[in-house]
Amino acid sequence: MSEGYNVAVVGAGLVGEKLVSELYRRGFPVRDLRVLARTARTAELAGRTFEIGVAEPEAFEGVDIALFAGTEGEKGAAVRLAREAIARGATVIDNGSDFRLDPEVPLVVPEVNPHALENHRGLIANPNCSTIQMVVALAPIARSFGLERVVVSTYQAVSGAGRAGVEALEMGSGDAFPKPISGNVLPLIGSVGEDGYTTEERKMREESRKILEMPSLPVYATTVRVPVHTGHAESIYVETSEEVTLDAVLSALSEAPGIEPYADPLQAPTPIEVAGDPKVHVGRVRAEGNVVELWCVADNLLKGAATNAVQIAEALVGVGAPKAV
Amino acid sequence: MSEGYNVAVVGAGLVGEKLVSELYRRGFPVRDLRVLARTARTAELAGRTFEIGVAEPEAFEGVDIALFAGTEGEKGAAVRLAREAIARGATVIDNGSDFRLDPEVPLVVPEVNPHALENHRGLIANPNCSTIQMVVALAPIARSFGLERVVVSTYQAVSGAGRAGVEALEMGSGDAFPKPISGNVLPLIGSVGEDGYTTEERKMREESRKILEMPSLPVYATTVRVPVHTGHAESIYVETSEEVTLDAVLSALSEAPGIEPYADPLQAPTPIEVAGDPKVHVGRVRAEGNVVELWCVADNLLKGAATNAVQIAEALVGVGAPKAV
Repeated sequence: MSEGYNVAVVGAGLVGEKLVSELYRRGFPVRDLRVLARTARTAELAGRTFEIGVAEPEAFEGVDIALFAGTEGEKGAAVRLAREAIARGATVIDNGSDFRLDPEVPLVVPEVNPHALENHRGLIANPNCSTIQMVVALAPIARSFGLERVVVSTYQAVSGAGRAGVEALEMGSGDAFPKPISGNVLPLIGSVGEDGYTTEERKMREESRKILEMPSLPVYATTVRVPVHTGHAESIYVETSEEVTLDAVLSALSEAPGIEPYADPLQAPTPIEVAGDPKVHVGRVRAEGNVVELWCVADNLLKGAATNAVQIAEALVGVGAPKAV
Repeated sequence: MSEGYNVAVVGAGLVGEKLVSELYRRGFPVRDLRVLARTARTAELAGRTFEIGVAEPEAFEGVDIALFAGTEGEKGAAVRLAREAIARGATVIDNGSDFRLDPEVPLVVPEVNPHALENHRGLIANPNCSTIQMVVALAPIARSFGLERVVVSTYQAVSGAGRAGVEALEMGSGDAFPKPISGNVLPLIGSVGEDGYTTEERKMREESRKILEMPSLPVYATTVRVPVHTGHAESIYVETSEEVTLDAVLSALSEAPGIEPYADPLQAPTPIEVAGDPKVHVGRVRAEGNVVELWCVADNLLKGAATNAVQIAEALVGVGAPKAV
């Protein structure tokens, strides 16, 4: 393919691999694809062999779009390299959490706030996995009925903690989690702040407010790791501004982009079934008065990370940000 | 032991076995203990050998206290046998769900509403497992600050579905659950009503209202099965009548009976650690304004079933309902 974009994927972990596979699966117009990581090596990613290059400033020469998986030590690789990539003409889409709340950085879920892309300055942030699927489910409710309050409890898969998380579940090894995860549930994801909320819970609150453009929306999150390989689930309670009916809520959900709705409560989605699918699956919908309750499941590596990032790249191409070659 | 009570345990499944072990562990004054089930057989329960008798009316002759585990087909064995046992002089404590909402039947958690026992007519209901641990955690908050609204999402262990539930997790066999539970979470426990709530969710709402004596308390429950052997966890959001502070909430919880509080958010309880302990473990406490959030874990077979039932028996002995021999 001689037309298309030069794309760099930074990171070769679970999310890096899914970024590669989503670029191909979705038919993104790639001219050249390079994968960068901390050390150079030959590796198999998404069924193809890559000569992985070192993630250093010079590696971004000629790159149009750089997708950062966000996995490099305490902070994401974008902290070290995003400016370097932008200076060389790339637009950076960062799945790491370092820039998400920067007021100059758009935080984008294309189904929810694509307009936020318009004024980007070379860097766009991909939201937290749990946040993405929640705002996809909340956006149609916000549009139709208004949001007053959100209470959410999560059931998060171990692959959200990368390969080390998967190994902790499958082999009981490593220190990805502070306690055993097999046969257990762990109500602590990230570190705990003075107010008792974890970093994951703060992300869900602050990122949702930014994406939904409701800076004071009350969002009460409790985030919990469960012994599931892939697929985050969320139990969401919403108070709306206007009164709801079940039919009106189901109708709003079914008309919204990116949602697979389940009108039959017996057909509630589960992580095992949803893993591998890029949509946000919404079931167990209950609605009465000013309250909506729902159950939302999505692949945390796809819509929660790689799919959303590639959708942002697609939207960028659509709005002409990187030059088509 | 020549003094004490003649006790019958009806049911030899997971809960029946825990009823036997809790009677001994707590030192309940048992004179004669008989175990009854659908068919007679010799069985090992809680490390002792029992000649299990047939659960039929005549088997209750001479019984002072009959503890029904609640596991017999669609309805509990108490539907068939409670009247027969009462007619023969026994006081029945039923862990089944059939009589819990009967206005003439006390529904009792001894830490919360022991006074409800006073006017019993021979039958006392033991609440649903998820409900018991929730009301133990909510009662001190209700007393100190008043309750306006409860939103709860559960993480329920497979042993709540009996031996078939455990086998479904450990061997992937049987039809205890409609979908695989290993590596998955299932947001459907019980059957679904027209309003979209499951029977388990209705139990949490209706039973909590009865035990807390707040008949119109808004309780929004979403109940979810997780791949954990034993130990139910709950993420609970509470709106209070009066403003709270974290210190005041922790103080109320630590002074309440039956609660193991975790003031340090890093020490949040998990099912694996709590299984085998009869208390309700409450951690991840967050409190500000009129909102309290907490994480509550208890052994569903102990405090969620057998321990609570034996505590009711102890309270009955205290108030003199069955005759001491």
